[in-house]
Amino acid sequence: MKPSSKRVIADLEELAALTTDERGAQRVAWGPVWRKTRDWFTAKLRTELGLEPHRDGAGNLWATLPGASPRGLVIGSHLDSVPGGGWLDGCLGVLAGLEVLRRARAAGTPPLTLHLVDWADEEGARFGRSLAGSAASAGTLDAHAELAHLVDRAGVKLPDALAENGVTLDGMGTARAYFDALGAIAYLELHIEQGPVLESMRKPTGLVLGTMGVERHNLRFVGQAAHSGAAPIHLRKDAFLAAAEFALACRDISVKYSGKTPRTRVVATCGVVKVEPNFVTAVPGSTEISIDLRALDATVLKKMLADARRAAAKAARTHKVAVSWSPLLHITPRPFDPALMTIARTAIKEVTGTAPELPSGPLHDAAEMAAVVPTAMIFAQSSPGISHTKLEDTPRPALDKSIRAFLIAVDRTVAQLAGSSTVSASGARSRTPARRPR
Amino acid sequence: MKPSSKRVIADLEELAALTTDERGAQRVAWGPVWRKTRDWFTAKLRTELGLEPHRDGAGNLWATLPGASPRGLVIGSHLDSVPGGGWLDGCLGVLAGLEVLRRARAAGTPPLTLHLVDWADEEGARFGRSLAGSAASAGTLDAHAELAHLVDRAGVKLPDALAENGVTLDGMGTARAYFDALGAIAYLELHIEQGPVLESMRKPTGLVLGTMGVERHNLRFVGQAAHSGAAPIHLRKDAFLAAAEFALACRDISVKYSGKTPRTRVVATCGVVKVEPNFVTAVPGSTEISIDLRALDATVLKKMLADARRAAAKAARTHKVAVSWSPLLHITPRPFDPALMTIARTAIKEVTGTAPELPSGPLHDAAEMAAVVPTAMIFAQSSPGISHTKLEDTPRPALDKSIRAFLIAVDRTVAQLAGSSTVSASGARSRTPARRPR
Repeated sequence: MKPSSKRVIADLEELAALTTDERGAQRVAWGPVWRKTRDWFTAKLRTELGLEPHRDGAGNLWATLPGASPRGLVIGSHLDSVPGGGWLDGCLGVLAGLEVLRRARAAGTPPLTLHLVDWADEEGARFGRSLAGSAASAGTLDAHAELAHLVDRAGVKLPDALAENGVTLDGMGTARAYFDALGAIAYLELHIEQGPVLESMRKPTGLVLGTMGVERHNLRFVGQAAHSGAAPIHLRKDAFLAAAEFALACRDISVKYSGKTPRTRVVATCGVVKVEPNFVTAVPGSTEISIDLRALDATVLKKMLADARRAAAKAARTHKVAVSWSPLLHITPRPFDPALMTIARTAIKEVTGTAPELPSGPLHDAAEMAAVVPTAMIFAQSSPGISHTKLEDTPRPALDKSIRAFLIAVDRTVAQLAGSSTVSASGARSRTPARRPR
Repeated sequence: MKPSSKRVIADLEELAALTTDERGAQRVAWGPVWRKTRDWFTAKLRTELGLEPHRDGAGNLWATLPGASPRGLVIGSHLDSVPGGGWLDGCLGVLAGLEVLRRARAAGTPPLTLHLVDWADEEGARFGRSLAGSAASAGTLDAHAELAHLVDRAGVKLPDALAENGVTLDGMGTARAYFDALGAIAYLELHIEQGPVLESMRKPTGLVLGTMGVERHNLRFVGQAAHSGAAPIHLRKDAFLAAAEFALACRDISVKYSGKTPRTRVVATCGVVKVEPNFVTAVPGSTEISIDLRALDATVLKKMLADARRAAAKAARTHKVAVSWSPLLHITPRPFDPALMTIARTAIKEVTGTAPELPSGPLHDAAEMAAVVPTAMIFAQSSPGISHTKLEDTPRPALDKSIRAFLIAVDRTVAQLAGSSTVSASGARSRTPARRPR
């Protein structure tokens, strides 16, 4: 059967109508709209495929279409959204996966067992910990240590929100064993880019090289608050000017380490800035500033951080202030599997003519999967290139092409995996628990 | 009688014991501690001098010692403080003025009439409008337009707080006529510097050249928020980086226009910085930043503002964002009277050996008086050079010298004014209402 995006887009539109209000998608994990979404999805699995979904201890929702071989290909993404999110972020990949099952069922018994997964709480929008479900399956989540203390803005504790959904912290600890029992040998995901790279290249579909590593820190510059009129410039210890110089230096660092191609681009962002005392007549006595450095190459990321540390020390010296660092997050880069990428590249070229390659700055469930099974990922263009807003979109022609390229990539992956005992030389991945990436 | 600081310092200590808690001075205008301060001060005037203070319509408290001539010299400052303020800010000048009256009374009838004034609400700490009392007397306050709508943090309206003190907005409009009727021909004020300049020069006492003009604006840089991982550097519109570049450029502007001496120093301060959306993973989509430019020379101030506008436009272009300006405050420079400054300079030199000259960055009641009568001002060193904190202080030897220099300056001013019909050529000031300075 020729791959078509028609049913996928119809499903996406149906879901949007069901779960979107005037502010955007409202499928926040562990809440009522998210449960409604899963009920809708479960009904589709039952009526269209006769499949009864199953849940692991982390609340991930699985649908399994048994194949000639028990070895499994996992297709997944997430139905949850941020509050006021876009209509494609996450659900595109899950509903494209539903189409994969429909096509496979129509063709008879697939050569491999196909698992479709809706990962729980990819966004972390309510409690702040993203990728909870996929990390649990990858064995990189310490649920008690990382989740037990989290509270949402209304004061609800995460364990209580989990309980409303029949999930416990202890149960989360069983998700890795559940995953291992599936016998998965590969993972594929389709997702909207959430950025402007493909749009700027005028390409509908891209091959994702991996997810960038992240070094995220909070810096605190401390000088001396003073009256804006009374303190001469040469006697000041202006903490904000030091932070300003640091931020501009970090931009220069990102330019220094960025290559010419999307593959080699790196980014540096100062997103949080807090000045004290924050009066019009006060020289800032202290300034907090966050730095978020990302690169696909771990060595480059390390150099960027070293440069940023030097830049902070220099800015502090120049403005006669002190600076201290607090680490917020460290994530190692997760390059995807070369053999699966070759298959996906061919599929994308077949549909769109070219297969631009780009790393993903944002994290995805695929990053967690990459630690345990060979993984590949395809991006659909964002236009406008913004994310986590109801304005997030993929133009219909690009959406159509991206879905078709993904369906073809899945077909080819199934065919190739069924014909070999391992994915590739590079695919001989360990199934032992990966080192915790954060 | 030889001038001595002894009684002034004793009074200051008595007042501190009466009106200071563990967080500092609490003599906030229009409140109970401030009224207690004025009761204490009134009792001193009555018991030590037999003087009954009188109040004008703006709540300024006056004590008049009649002289041989009805022409008046006004000595003043303010007993009010910020919450948690220092023990000298304002009350130093009022209690030095009390000593002026004591010395004059002890010497018989002064050749000129002496007026001591405690200006109401110099700090503007509770409602945000500083210099209310002295501005009313100078005729530069439009009480209905500027004060009627002001509300404190507890929701109390300024007119209601005034009413608790027997003051009305209409009454404030009469303060200029009240002042004119006094027949004042000069104004002198002693104040703590509130900055580190004299301390850095190791000088106990300084001659104030005038108060700097102020150009205060709020800038808003608007770019495009984006995900820190998804948005490549070259496609960003980072509003914070533009603001950072602007702030550093303003520092360079202040260095460019500052001369080598305190007289010619200018300042530029970015005190308020607000970044949106202010997330670690978000490229800032907008940034508000305040700029406060100050210079004693109006032409220099104008050039600084023009340079700052160019710097903002350039920073906006560089980072592909828009920038808009909103004016917050415009105050013209208020140079003090050369003839009175000559007298004060001599007095300071007599006591301390040298008379360093410096402009005041902060505003003072003397700035309002300078618009209507010849005015001079003496600073006592701050050490540490910080203000509006209980840590604000003047070391005792510097305090002693500054008070004595001020008392001598008053003596000489009285003698010189009594012997001439006008202060000096430069002192032939207009008594017509000055143009509103803000």
